[in-house]
Amino acid sequence: MSGFGAATAVEPAGEGRYGAVLDAGYLIGEALNGGYLMAVLDRAAVAASPHAHPVSTAVTFHRVAVPGPAEVIVEPRKEGRTAATFRVSLVQDGRTAADALITTATLDPAAGLAWTGTAPTGLPPLEECTEPRPPTGGGFADQVDMRFDRSMMGWLDGRPSGRPEIRGWFRLRDGHRPDAYALALAVDALPPVVLNLGARGWAPTVELTWHMRAVPAPGWLALHGSGRVLSDGWFDEDVEVWDSTGRLVAQSRQLARAPRDR
Amino acid sequence: MSGFGAATAVEPAGEGRYGAVLDAGYLIGEALNGGYLMAVLDRAAVAASPHAHPVSTAVTFHRVAVPGPAEVIVEPRKEGRTAATFRVSLVQDGRTAADALITTATLDPAAGLAWTGTAPTGLPPLEECTEPRPPTGGGFADQVDMRFDRSMMGWLDGRPSGRPEIRGWFRLRDGHRPDAYALALAVDALPPVVLNLGARGWAPTVELTWHMRAVPAPGWLALHGSGRVLSDGWFDEDVEVWDSTGRLVAQSRQLARAPRDR
Repeated sequence: MSGFGAATAVEPAGEGRYGAVLDAGYLIGEALNGGYLMAVLDRAAVAASPHAHPVSTAVTFHRVAVPGPAEVIVEPRKEGRTAATFRVSLVQDGRTAADALITTATLDPAAGLAWTGTAPTGLPPLEECTEPRPPTGGGFADQVDMRFDRSMMGWLDGRPSGRPEIRGWFRLRDGHRPDAYALALAVDALPPVVLNLGARGWAPTVELTWHMRAVPAPGWLALHGSGRVLSDGWFDEDVEVWDSTGRLVAQSRQLARAPRDR
Repeated sequence: MSGFGAATAVEPAGEGRYGAVLDAGYLIGEALNGGYLMAVLDRAAVAASPHAHPVSTAVTFHRVAVPGPAEVIVEPRKEGRTAATFRVSLVQDGRTAADALITTATLDPAAGLAWTGTAPTGLPPLEECTEPRPPTGGGFADQVDMRFDRSMMGWLDGRPSGRPEIRGWFRLRDGHRPDAYALALAVDALPPVVLNLGARGWAPTVELTWHMRAVPAPGWLALHGSGRVLSDGWFDEDVEVWDSTGRLVAQSRQLARAPRDR
């Protein structure tokens, strides 16, 4: 195991405790990416569960987590026929960095769709999106290959679109195939959609809930991010993740603080 | 205090514990409504917080809760300048019925909107919706006055619309004005949207996260429920709550199990 798999690995340490070594490769500035932390929390919950998939993960982020050793505490709360639920916490240097409620179940990779809405339209084909980003010498952008819809990236040049939307293609650079943990990373991988409303700077996630809806097929994932309201310093961001077969495989919503200079 | 206010009241019992008496008026069949339980959990979190509003509530429902005494356990996890977060559990007869992660903050009732999406269209005016339901002799429908868009209620007569959508107007019958706790009730008040896909019977909520986005104005609330995917026995349901001034005041998403006979 290497790359993303190794970076999110957890080692059982007894009594519902798991050790992890948080990887500097997932830094965005001075904070580890929230999706990366969710992947670690989800791995620990699944390790403690009889089920294979984290179907629901609700996380509240309390403090920035940094590279280095951390502990994941997994507390079983309910085990039923279909699902098992855990309270999961990420602890670093004796302080809780994040609390989560995670429900695990086993999704059938062959399950058909009883009903599905249609995919959002408008994401251009890969070759019309932004170019692959050259290596930055470490950090999040070196782990993921993201190709953005150019029409939603004007904020990079001081021309925000005026609509809180960002979409693009996503894969891990190391060849890690889409799975539950890659989905955890994907739902928090887009730049904050409020950048397209003229906001600048860090937009800390307060709460993020994501649901795994199907086992993703190999290939690129399409990410569609959008928001509904920015008010009183708070904004929401929904991300839908569609796999290469055109299936909705993950949904997330986060509540975040808008950068202060707006 | 009477009606909904009294039914959701919590009494401090020391050491982060609050007593509640769950009210039979919020039964749907043999289970208390999840939105009602969230209102009780949110009241306890706000009682323990320096802040006024539950801006984020993520709940996992483990077991049916029934009328009678219950205990709410509130554990502070992080207090910052803007927000304070708690783990909150509902315990009845020595068993945990629900676990929650609740973040409290204080929303400014006078806060302007920096940006908002448009309200969903298509909800007919009140007088064109379903008639007020006559008293049923107890239970949830006697507490809330809901007037549904008739075009989405064909499932009542065996003619589901084929689209997982239900919308309607909502208020409490006792005159309780819209507030955070009425919003908690509202986001889980609609019949399950999968009834419009031909499902019948009880659709237990596994996880529900809702965000309070603004202090609601007096008057009717407009509820817009919709789903994206039904697969492998799991479905999602989003509810947006718009107040009488046309402002988005709450957003929710739940992951639920579809009734078995589909």
